[in-house]
Amino acid sequence: MYKMTWPEVKEYLKENDVVIFPVGSQEQHGKHLAEDNDSFTATEIAKRVGEKTGVLVAPTLPFGNSIHHMKFPGTMTLKFDTLVNVYKELCKNLIHHGFKKIVVMNAHGGNTSAIAQALREIKEETGIRIYSLMAFPSPRGFGAESTKVIKQEKGGHACELETSIELYLGQRVLMDKAEKWKQPKDTTAFEEKWGSKISWTREFHEITETGSLGDPTAATKEKGKLMVEAVVEEISAFIEDLKAT
Amino acid sequence: MYKMTWPEVKEYLKENDVVIFPVGSQEQHGKHLAEDNDSFTATEIAKRVGEKTGVLVAPTLPFGNSIHHMKFPGTMTLKFDTLVNVYKELCKNLIHHGFKKIVVMNAHGGNTSAIAQALREIKEETGIRIYSLMAFPSPRGFGAESTKVIKQEKGGHACELETSIELYLGQRVLMDKAEKWKQPKDTTAFEEKWGSKISWTREFHEITETGSLGDPTAATKEKGKLMVEAVVEEISAFIEDLKAT
Amino acid sequence: MYKMTWPEVKEYLKENDVVIFPVGSQEQHGKHLAEDNDSFTATEIAKRVGEKTGVLVAPTLPFGNSIHHMKFPGTMTLKFDTLVNVYKELCKNLIHHGFKKIVVMNAHGGNTSAIAQALREIKEETGIRIYSLMAFPSPRGFGAESTKVIKQEKGGHACELETSIELYLGQRVLMDKAEKWKQPKDTTAFEEKWGSKISWTREFHEITETGSLGDPTAATKEKGKLMVEAVVEEISAFIEDLKAT
Amino acid sequence: MYKMTWPEVKEYLKENDVVIFPVGSQEQHGKHLAEDNDSFTATEIAKRVGEKTGVLVAPTLPFGNSIHHMKFPGTMTLKFDTLVNVYKELCKNLIHHGFKKIVVMNAHGGNTSAIAQALREIKEETGIRIYSLMAFPSPRGFGAESTKVIKQEKGGHACELETSIELYLGQRVLMDKAEKWKQPKDTTAFEEKWGSKISWTREFHEITETGSLGDPTAATKEKGKLMVEAVVEEISAFIEDLKAT
Amino acid sequence: MYKMTWPEVKEYLKENDVVIFPVGSQEQHGKHLAEDNDSFTATEIAKRVGEKTGVLVAPTLPFGNSIHHMKFPGTMTLKFDTLVNVYKELCKNLIHHGFKKIVVMNAHGGNTSAIAQALREIKEETGIRIYSLMAFPSPRGFGAESTKVIKQEKGGHACELETSIELYLGQRVLMDKAEKWKQPKDTTAFEEKWGSKISWTREFHEITETGSLGDPTAATKEKGKLMVEAVVEEISAFIEDLKAT
Amino acid sequence: MYKMTWPEVKEYLKENDVVIFPVGSQEQHGKHLAEDNDSFTATEIAKRVGEKTGVLVAPTLPFGNSIHHMKFPGTMTLKFDTLVNVYKELCKNLIHHGFKKIVVMNAHGGNTSAIAQALREIKEETGIRIYSLMAFPSPRGFGAESTKVIKQEKGGHACELETSIELYLGQRVLMDKAEKWKQPKDTTAFEEKWGSKISWTREFHEITETGSLGDPTAATKEKGKLMVEAVVEEISAFIEDLKAT
Repeated sequence: MYKMTWPEVKEYLKENDVVIFPVGSQEQHGKHLAEDNDSFTATEIAKRVGEKTGVLVAPTLPFGNSIHHMKFPGTMTLKFDTLVNVYKELCKNLIHHGFKKIVVMNAHGGNTSAIAQALREIKEETGIRIYSLMAFPSPRGFGAESTKVIKQEKGGHACELETSIELYLGQRVLMDKAEKWKQPKDTTAFEEKWGSKISWTREFHEITETGSLGDPTAATKEKGKLMVEAVVEEISAFIEDLKAT
Repeated sequence: MYKMTWPEVKEYLKENDVVIFPVGSQEQHGKHLAEDNDSFTATEIAKRVGEKTGVLVAPTLPFGNSIHHMKFPGTMTLKFDTLVNVYKELCKNLIHHGFKKIVVMNAHGGNTSAIAQALREIKEETGIRIYSLMAFPSPRGFGAESTKVIKQEKGGHACELETSIELYLGQRVLMDKAEKWKQPKDTTAFEEKWGSKISWTREFHEITETGSLGDPTAATKEKGKLMVEAVVEEISAFIEDLKAT
Repeated sequence: MYKMTWPEVKEYLKENDVVIFPVGSQEQHGKHLAEDNDSFTATEIAKRVGEKTGVLVAPTLPFGNSIHHMKFPGTMTLKFDTLVNVYKELCKNLIHHGFKKIVVMNAHGGNTSAIAQALREIKEETGIRIYSLMAFPSPRGFGAESTKVIKQEKGGHACELETSIELYLGQRVLMDKAEKWKQPKDTTAFEEKWGSKISWTREFHEITETGSLGDPTAATKEKGKLMVEAVVEEISAFIEDLKAT
Repeated sequence: MYKMTWPEVKEYLKENDVVIFPVGSQEQHGKHLAEDNDSFTATEIAKRVGEKTGVLVAPTLPFGNSIHHMKFPGTMTLKFDTLVNVYKELCKNLIHHGFKKIVVMNAHGGNTSAIAQALREIKEETGIRIYSLMAFPSPRGFGAESTKVIKQEKGGHACELETSIELYLGQRVLMDKAEKWKQPKDTTAFEEKWGSKISWTREFHEITETGSLGDPTAATKEKGKLMVEAVVEEISAFIEDLKAT
Repeated sequence: MYKMTWPEVKEYLKENDVVIFPVGSQEQHGKHLAEDNDSFTATEIAKRVGEKTGVLVAPTLPFGNSIHHMKFPGTMTLKFDTLVNVYKELCKNLIHHGFKKIVVMNAHGGNTSAIAQALREIKEETGIRIYSLMAFPSPRGFGAESTKVIKQEKGGHACELETSIELYLGQRVLMDKAEKWKQPKDTTAFEEKWGSKISWTREFHEITETGSLGDPTAATKEKGKLMVEAVVEEISAFIEDLKAT
Repeated sequence: MYKMTWPEVKEYLKENDVVIFPVGSQEQHGKHLAEDNDSFTATEIAKRVGEKTGVLVAPTLPFGNSIHHMKFPGTMTLKFDTLVNVYKELCKNLIHHGFKKIVVMNAHGGNTSAIAQALREIKEETGIRIYSLMAFPSPRGFGAESTKVIKQEKGGHACELETSIELYLGQRVLMDKAEKWKQPKDTTAFEEKWGSKISWTREFHEITETGSLGDPTAATKEKGKLMVEAVVEEISAFIEDLKAT
């Protein structure tokens, strides 16, 4: 949508009411991935889904909630309240123009609470229910089957899964710098014992020294291709169903 | 900066403390320019200045204050307060990482009040004075001399000046759709008589029917080249002086 | 603590710095459980842990985030922002008096985002890291082993697990009214197909007709006793370790 | 209401629209009364009135505005704005469910400004006028006649009146620790001379050393019985009139 | 202070640190008094006290909290939160310039809650305790003895006391329009019976038809002179003591 | 309006719907002008226009946005957000009473952003478009022709133009103290070179040592008379046209 003129958008709205709004983050992604990684991914997946379904794509919001990564230089973050307002206001702009089915395509787990809060408030204020989904594949989300190619035991950030996808999407990846998760030296016995049962405010640098959770060294472009194709296909199927509701 | 890894940003910060933060808007730009026009321009000028001066460039904020364009489909806008918070939080992230000289490169006039407010509050809260400048040339700003190639009498939006620059920068431009300013038919005598002396809340569609202020049909790539080169050179000179302070 | 005089609290603080702050909710709990169920549970578990470890217990906050239950009469809820402020201010009161190790004992899943946000902000503002844990047992939390007595396949609200616990704790339970989860009649094929992969704002009455998720009819007091004893013992072990840090 | 199931509340609302919402505080009450004193009193009076009139009682809010007591350990307080929001949101929940006549039963003088503000805003936003009254007797409020049994000259906090009531209601009272008001040693002549004519922000520990204002040593259970019965009877009469409006 | 130049204020601050800040309201004052009545009174009393004590007077804030008078044309009001912020910010300006002893001279009862809240927050944020007093005499405030000349039984707004003072101060008074309090015709029996014991949000037009509470027809200039002289003398005595602390 | 009774305002509103709301500031005006200068000017021009057109005038708001003058003693300022709220709430009061055409008469350039923001929000919330104009003459505003008597090259604050007007309006002016603009000694070469092209947060004391921008010593009462008469006449013509719309 952002590369269109206003008469073109007006034309689209005569027959269509679906739009994809990609949201990402600017945050450290290990020693080997560029910091715009999630924004890049949301944009790329949205573009592919948009082309496949003929649905418009709004500009990508390149900042999100990355407060827990702030010890890593280059990370940028918005406060929770600000981020909720940003999501709300931008989605309400789309509603204002006549879009009735908005799909927030999110590529950063840290954004989910703020998105959920924004969506709830929008529904209360406008009656419109907005949809949000993850652009990355996951065992319980889109592309579930395809994630079985991943071998690492635990992951979740700048890991085998993410890195494979970036290799395929053409992101800037420094594979020779890739390092897997390493526990920080100053982790205490108390933290190790209770860390998984208690919620407390732990920053990413307290949990990983490299910035990665998982093993990015196992990533390949082939795995990425498999997962991207799966996720694009499944999300597109959802969009087609959505059009028809 | 957004295409770098965290160790690369860390390395840069050892010897440098300048960063450019481009900000734009998503709003109608007449019948011929893509709606991401200001974001695209801020990004392109920042990139050129960054390459010339060796200074890092943060990700572009692609949304701004465009409330007065909301009648034109595809425009997206943040509220004044939200926008001030977004500018403040992102600039304070940069300060947090050790950047001491931040240059907000703005390509949208509608953002200036919010930027000024954000910069004042940052100075009060951190003591750090941030710089803001316009990426577009203007008679009293950067590239002043070069703007003499512009022939239109009045301008200011999606006009001869802006369109020339976009033709040179490679933005999506539909020259065959370009139309100059046209006064809306329902303008009253009262509005014509007092419009220039009184401040009231007038929307863009009350002032122009095409979305343009000025005459984009007079735009050429050559004029754009002249102006872009002037503005890049002058801003780069400023950046060099800034490094040396 | 709330049944003590100020000189008694002052005395305690000379030698101790741990306090438990129970938080619950006022929301529907199926056709058979009283609406104060989570507040009651947080209070009861906190009391038992307090007695076992000699640690003070603050008054229970009997309201939480229950917005998604509002179609069921009697539910009361605070907005996200308000709830974050309430948690923050009350925890900061405790810090003000000299408590250094605060344990938020939460018995309602809907509160977790707000608690996490409050804890993060408190850490940023005061440097103090507060701990939050669930008062109910769960397969990945406290009392994990004990939850194996539960037979229902899916659960999560006013279910076999919760009801068993209440039977043991002495909550008001109307077992003859207990009914298991029933899907609302107006659920669409689109909702059934995509419900688990997409995040959207669904209210509880769109998901269950009885108010329960799971099967409360399988609950027994014996299962409750087993789980309560396990959870009290394990949380107490955590508290003892916390004292020693 | 909080010990009922949602179908029970639904049933009640078919024929009734009155509800009592008790609010208290967690704050020092001299050397002899438990810190939950106002919450306990609001709850107990509400329960008695509820039983007498058949009106439902919501859960008690156990925190209020006690900022001026914060030098006494164990006191907890909400900020003015937060407290107004809490009152507003919880009352609006009750309105949402169909209660039309809401009676806020307050047992702490420090809450009155915040309640008045909340009630005004609710009226502006919903058109519904909510009633607020004091659970404690007073010469110009409910139970006025009965307060003549009180002998102390000045009072107002953890005093003869309050302590008598708690002795009767069964609150935890340490009569052997009860001490009457004692002026702090560092009170200046300027403060003594102008204290009653000027408004300034004085904390409770600047005014009393024991925490009491008045003379709790004169309290008896009999005085308490007399006052509680009077206040319950008169408030119940009000509720009956309210039902009939 | 507002009629001085900045070098004059600078000079004053070398030897002095007391300042008076008058605050009033714009609201109906019966059928006979101008609507700026409280602002006018605060200004006039402040001027007299300022002259007597040599203390500077800041500009008068002519708006306050008059929400309950909004049914009477010409009344203007600020919201509670806004008013608190206005008081806070303006007082903090004075602190910023070096004033250490600030006296808020208030002539409108409706402002007291907001002033108290502002003063508390200022004290928490700056450690400076600000003084607030009433410019009108009252039985328990300044000029207490002099108020014995007042004959009306009940009063409080645009009444014998206020009108007498305005006659003396030279306010615009239309004595031939003065009318005493008249109960609105639609007052219910319920309101009459419970009005004094219950707090609910009642607007002024629900309580008085003329806008007055009390009997302005009994006002005379002589009574006004007596009271103004008393109040000016007593407040000046306070200011002198304040200087000496 | 502020010197009228409520029945008088009610009477006016039967036949009229225009009102002028003057807004000023409390801030340094060089070494020779009183600090209430803008408030005084707004009030005086409003009074003259009001008399000429028969239009009501609301009380003057004597505080504005003067944050950039705070290093000069006696300046008082409201924060941007607070000021926007104050403008909004007071204008909405006027709308509430039935005024449909509100003219904000502003005498301080620093207020314009906040006024513009308030007017936009009022229009969005109520649909009513409020007018704002400058009380001082200027080359592109009211009284444009008359400003040709001014000789100073650059001006803008406590200068030849402003001082001439004050001499005529009867403001307190200390002509023997008047001094023209003087550059602060510590201005750097970097500031001189880039100051006009870059926006950064510069305080007034960084730009002028006397507090003036321009040359007040060239002011005369005659120039003031000429300009005041021109501005009053032209604004009155606008008001007459406004009445007729």
